[in-house]
Amino acid sequence: MEKWYCLHCHRFQELDIHSPFCHLCESPLVIWPQKKGRSFHLDRPSSLEKFKAFLPLNRLETKLSLGEGNTPLLRLYHIEKRLRSSFPIYAKNEMVNPTHSFKDRGTTVVIQKALALKIKKIGTVSTGNMAASTAAYGAKAGLKTFILLKEDASLEKTLSTGIYGANLIRVKGDYGELFKESYRIGKRVGIYFANSCDPYRLEGYKITSFEIYFQLGERVPDYLFVPVSSGGHLVGLILGFLDLFREGLIKRLPHFIGLQAKGCSPIVQSWKKNLKEIVPIKVPQTIAHAISNPSPPAGKLVLKLLRETGGEMLAVTDEELMRAQGELASLEGLFCDPASATTLAGLKKWYRLNRQIKPREAVLVLTGTGLKDLSPVKEREKISLISVSLSGLEEALTSLAI
Amino acid sequence: MEKWYCLHCHRFQELDIHSPFCHLCESPLVIWPQKKGRSFHLDRPSSLEKFKAFLPLNRLETKLSLGEGNTPLLRLYHIEKRLRSSFPIYAKNEMVNPTHSFKDRGTTVVIQKALALKIKKIGTVSTGNMAASTAAYGAKAGLKTFILLKEDASLEKTLSTGIYGANLIRVKGDYGELFKESYRIGKRVGIYFANSCDPYRLEGYKITSFEIYFQLGERVPDYLFVPVSSGGHLVGLILGFLDLFREGLIKRLPHFIGLQAKGCSPIVQSWKKNLKEIVPIKVPQTIAHAISNPSPPAGKLVLKLLRETGGEMLAVTDEELMRAQGELASLEGLFCDPASATTLAGLKKWYRLNRQIKPREAVLVLTGTGLKDLSPVKEREKISLISVSLSGLEEALTSLAI
Repeated sequence: MEKWYCLHCHRFQELDIHSPFCHLCESPLVIWPQKKGRSFHLDRPSSLEKFKAFLPLNRLETKLSLGEGNTPLLRLYHIEKRLRSSFPIYAKNEMVNPTHSFKDRGTTVVIQKALALKIKKIGTVSTGNMAASTAAYGAKAGLKTFILLKEDASLEKTLSTGIYGANLIRVKGDYGELFKESYRIGKRVGIYFANSCDPYRLEGYKITSFEIYFQLGERVPDYLFVPVSSGGHLVGLILGFLDLFREGLIKRLPHFIGLQAKGCSPIVQSWKKNLKEIVPIKVPQTIAHAISNPSPPAGKLVLKLLRETGGEMLAVTDEELMRAQGELASLEGLFCDPASATTLAGLKKWYRLNRQIKPREAVLVLTGTGLKDLSPVKEREKISLISVSLSGLEEALTSLAI
Repeated sequence: MEKWYCLHCHRFQELDIHSPFCHLCESPLVIWPQKKGRSFHLDRPSSLEKFKAFLPLNRLETKLSLGEGNTPLLRLYHIEKRLRSSFPIYAKNEMVNPTHSFKDRGTTVVIQKALALKIKKIGTVSTGNMAASTAAYGAKAGLKTFILLKEDASLEKTLSTGIYGANLIRVKGDYGELFKESYRIGKRVGIYFANSCDPYRLEGYKITSFEIYFQLGERVPDYLFVPVSSGGHLVGLILGFLDLFREGLIKRLPHFIGLQAKGCSPIVQSWKKNLKEIVPIKVPQTIAHAISNPSPPAGKLVLKLLRETGGEMLAVTDEELMRAQGELASLEGLFCDPASATTLAGLKKWYRLNRQIKPREAVLVLTGTGLKDLSPVKEREKISLISVSLSGLEEALTSLAI
């Protein structure tokens, strides 16, 4: 029998898919692992099948998968050189998931669970990656899907979610209130709202940790740089390494460095002041929309887990993350979104502040593609573009090619 | 020693990377396979390593790869049901490549070859997927990269290529002339222009065929539906199955169904009239920009190969392909570009015309993501979007959820 647990208060809690938060501290609940001695099936093609023993699923309906996971871990040689790094730097490229972000790993587990529970209606509160991911997997599973969007959701994001046939509902009013309301109404109306910190979503993120472990040759990464919005992704990654630890496969956890954008960095603010609570941000101001969460539901839990595991929270400016976005593209061929670019900006900042530390390696988790929002790219001056006539092409190429 | 061959005239030809076309018929040349008895290394993580024995590369620099390939083959249960199909229908999802299109499979081989030949400058003529792919891999390899764009290239495509730091050159004048000029100037200035039918690009596309063969359980797919622009991708896929045939692993080739958009269907026009030559289209008019090629360099070769292998060319209207784009998203969770959607639109048309045929299965090759051009989505009326206040949300969800 599955058990839900608060990693913050260390208490088991009742299961309620419409209220997956601790009664005491309001942190998101996680699934307590059922047994030890679990095994991997690395010969299977799908990531869910490979790691099924570590998921709270009795059976898998592989036909509901869109082929998520199995993403590459790429070594960033040019960035290492640019930073004069004494250690290898890798990128875990989550952009090559089916809807081009890490969210698919969580959604696929949510969908499996919905099927097991005979739930026919799912939903989510999101303006971006999670909306598209939930709409896509909802379509594949033939579920009725409801996406609650912020009032000011961009046309591009609305369209690229709407194409999947989900019901889109733009809601005027406070976003934090909307988050809470979604659970209350979901319970009454019979819609499973799998929001950012849903316990089954977090189970899906564990697989990223397992993959990194195997891609590094069955080793724990020394430092892991992760963009932090609600905090759910980071908690899920930690759960993955906790599973490996419990199985005796690793002897310690990675150092997790959580990144936020300076214009919306509630967890970093509390981290710096050594607080245990999150003070919500009133007016978020950052170009990194995917992590612009003024009141992260897992914030308090992230603070506690990072303190316990020797991690850290860091903020980077929009200028720093935009420069990092350009470097990842022009040096490594990886065009990620501004949220993902906080990992490189954060690594640079961290490296400046911690020259004495010699990590074995650092892994940057690139969470989503740059294609979904080209506005930060529009603001660049560095794009090299000239116009010529066909007859002037040879001259132009000759001078550029020197 | 590598040999280049014209599959149209059945003649060996001289190697010239700046002029990879037959002296007699101007068809693109292909690499003649060097030996038989080649083996797969399916235990390797990278797609290039798995199939290295089938590539014209003496050694691999895996550090130049962005993790392309290894894409999922997904069964389309809902579409099968909608079509009342008597056979399984699969999608080969090329959207999850590093720059979100099949082009990466070709570019990665081009880059390997450039390195082997000590070439420092590469280029391509493209307005879309190939531009981004070449710019990304050029960046990863530290090469100087030149992208020649059409005068009217959209801002979005220009930006999402420019972010990789390539030299972008917008060229006024005839696009067909530009294609030819790129080779001539490339030879003079020392830039390797790896355009759409480059022989090394085609070698990369072979891997898609190998993957499909293994994903189907070491079987040849019965029918393969492929969007056709220059014709290079289709020729590459055929080369892959020819390799499997030569190795004695399959006894026949798939039936290839090549798809074009009605508003730019030069190969279909010749196919219908049973011509051996391509008559260029004067004013292409289709929303499927990725396959809007008025004068496909491999057109003549495609005609010949499809006749020899029991294949077919079909055209679909923009209306048909837009409907198919919506169906792939809303029934199967796959948001592809209009070019990719021709495969489903084409399958539907083909199935109406050929009810007597009972294929063992059909595979649709989805070549690129829908994210790069949202304009076809904007024209949809079917997106379900309402606006409510927070206090009106419960009522709205209650009525929608019934």
